[in-house]
Amino acid sequence: MSHTDMPRAPFVEIDSWALKSNWRTLAMLAPDARTGAAVKADGYGLGGVIASKALFGAGCRDFFVAWAEEGAEIREAMPGKNCRIFVLQGLDRHAARLCRDERLLPVLSTPEDIELWTMGGEPEDGGLPGVAGLQLETGMHRLGLTDMQSRKAAELAKQGKLDLALVMSHLAAADEPGSRLADEQLDRFRKLANRFPFVARSLANSAAILRGPQFHFDLTRPGICLYGGQTALHAAGALRPVARLVGHVLQVADVKRGEHVGYGEAVKLKRTARIATVGLGYADGYPRSAFGDSVEGQRTAPAVHVEGHSAPIVGRISMDMSMVDISGLPEGAVRPGSEVEFFGPNIPVDAVAAQAGTIAYELLTGIGARVRRVWI
Amino acid sequence: MSHTDMPRAPFVEIDSWALKSNWRTLAMLAPDARTGAAVKADGYGLGGVIASKALFGAGCRDFFVAWAEEGAEIREAMPGKNCRIFVLQGLDRHAARLCRDERLLPVLSTPEDIELWTMGGEPEDGGLPGVAGLQLETGMHRLGLTDMQSRKAAELAKQGKLDLALVMSHLAAADEPGSRLADEQLDRFRKLANRFPFVARSLANSAAILRGPQFHFDLTRPGICLYGGQTALHAAGALRPVARLVGHVLQVADVKRGEHVGYGEAVKLKRTARIATVGLGYADGYPRSAFGDSVEGQRTAPAVHVEGHSAPIVGRISMDMSMVDISGLPEGAVRPGSEVEFFGPNIPVDAVAAQAGTIAYELLTGIGARVRRVWI
Repeated sequence: MSHTDMPRAPFVEIDSWALKSNWRTLAMLAPDARTGAAVKADGYGLGGVIASKALFGAGCRDFFVAWAEEGAEIREAMPGKNCRIFVLQGLDRHAARLCRDERLLPVLSTPEDIELWTMGGEPEDGGLPGVAGLQLETGMHRLGLTDMQSRKAAELAKQGKLDLALVMSHLAAADEPGSRLADEQLDRFRKLANRFPFVARSLANSAAILRGPQFHFDLTRPGICLYGGQTALHAAGALRPVARLVGHVLQVADVKRGEHVGYGEAVKLKRTARIATVGLGYADGYPRSAFGDSVEGQRTAPAVHVEGHSAPIVGRISMDMSMVDISGLPEGAVRPGSEVEFFGPNIPVDAVAAQAGTIAYELLTGIGARVRRVWI
Repeated sequence: MSHTDMPRAPFVEIDSWALKSNWRTLAMLAPDARTGAAVKADGYGLGGVIASKALFGAGCRDFFVAWAEEGAEIREAMPGKNCRIFVLQGLDRHAARLCRDERLLPVLSTPEDIELWTMGGEPEDGGLPGVAGLQLETGMHRLGLTDMQSRKAAELAKQGKLDLALVMSHLAAADEPGSRLADEQLDRFRKLANRFPFVARSLANSAAILRGPQFHFDLTRPGICLYGGQTALHAAGALRPVARLVGHVLQVADVKRGEHVGYGEAVKLKRTARIATVGLGYADGYPRSAFGDSVEGQRTAPAVHVEGHSAPIVGRISMDMSMVDISGLPEGAVRPGSEVEFFGPNIPVDAVAAQAGTIAYELLTGIGARVRRVWI
């Protein structure tokens, strides 16, 4: 195909081999535990259903979603596949019914959740409540049963009124090496979980898997490392980038010294430059703050990768476009239709996130709905 | 319905009356021009098809999208409706064919665009090229024909080889009162557009409509003000908020002085506080930077609106959740299931954007795909 034959709309290419490889690496790092996967928020923006199918193929049998609707979508896309789907939040009557109908396991986090679930749903259902998980508060103060509340839940479980498959908690600072909070949470989790003697335990997200075996318990539930973020957490370098965000060049133009480029008067060229305009902007999920507007007013210039070279972004990110300074590239290397990588194997997603003052999680979950998901 | 009957998943409520009212206000402010509408990026994240239908109902007949696919979706959703849909970027063979098939008007911005369009598409098509628009470069250096290139285009138009419905350009700093760039672009646009004597002209986005009649020409194309952003541009206050982003309380808990709340060790409570955990996070489009991590390290606390009161966010925004300090609210006012407005009539979207170091455009286009769009 010539350059004008290439569709110009942006896409994100997702490497399912790398996703599976990352899952296997994380599974090997916790050999005495089962390894699950967080596939909430549409598989961290990359596609919850297709990510779940790929991970099932790699051996994963425990999936974690935020909402019952997310779980139902995955269950329905994998008929006959024997796996557990845990729903982390948002139990209401509708969600409770969905959990029963689609065999999802709600993770009960409040007394209200427990009451609703053990009521057996709508009176006309009649049946016993299904199996559930429990979220325990250990120090993050986000969602989970307090000491007293978990004592009551343990009593219910003992009486056979609450059928539990998992007790879990979530670490607030597993990725901060200097923080003692993770160890404090570990201690509290052990104490609270001891009230549920024959129930499987889960505490570890990606960072906690790498923190050591004392965090692994019976089931881990990695997220960001599966999707190629925070790969630096694993010093051996076995974790791989998964997503490549790509736009295409729409125009190449020489712009004179002294001219402005892009919105506002953010950039005035100090020399004549060759500028490539690319059809990818913040509506596609490349953060406007990567250009540095919010970082103490300084204009940093994040890099993209185009035709084998690195090139800096120039001017503010627009809704549907970005401009790149290709003055340093060989004459004629970049043409309308050229592919431009905004993050991926050449431009680490963590580096872009740091430049934008955020984390890879927000970049991945923020990829625009109109960006084609291309799984390879 | 009791609180447990309420679905807990987040939604964005879109006020179609306010959208239409904003369009009419902007139309009244430019009485000698036609008033179009930018509906690109899925109608600034709110729903491109339904926004276009509402705006058509208000009298709009000229729509602007970024990509041909966006235009085709709108055309197919409004069969028999007589309107023009301009495609601002990304002309390739596929897009050219889509423009012909769906009667979209590509806005030609490069010599390559013009060549592709005037070739008549694939040779087997045989027919003449359809009507198009032209984008002229006037100082933003993003996308558009240079002086020399527009001269050649004018020659083609004169020879009957290029059938034009519109010449246009885009302002880089229309919303910056002190900037002279807008006036310089206005001068250049006049000069360049004079080469196309019988073709309609368009220069004004939302801010330029408010800047004065010299910017209006034949057709305006407002965007952000339609959707309730930058409403302060119009001092008379007739522009209204359109979108209300809502999550629901999942848990209410008392957290002791000295405890951490949320990720990292970003917040340690200086007093015992009542914390409501809400099922809406950055994967739903509420920016993580609103909490202030990227603003010079300071911890600012953006407000939300819950049960008739304002309350500050406490701790970092999670992927699927946020925490709110409701200590100042009456006992029992907030319960699991309570609605929480993150932006809308009570919390201006522009204020949240400013706190997050960005603009309302990025907040609206960044609303997560899993957030239900509820048009009222």
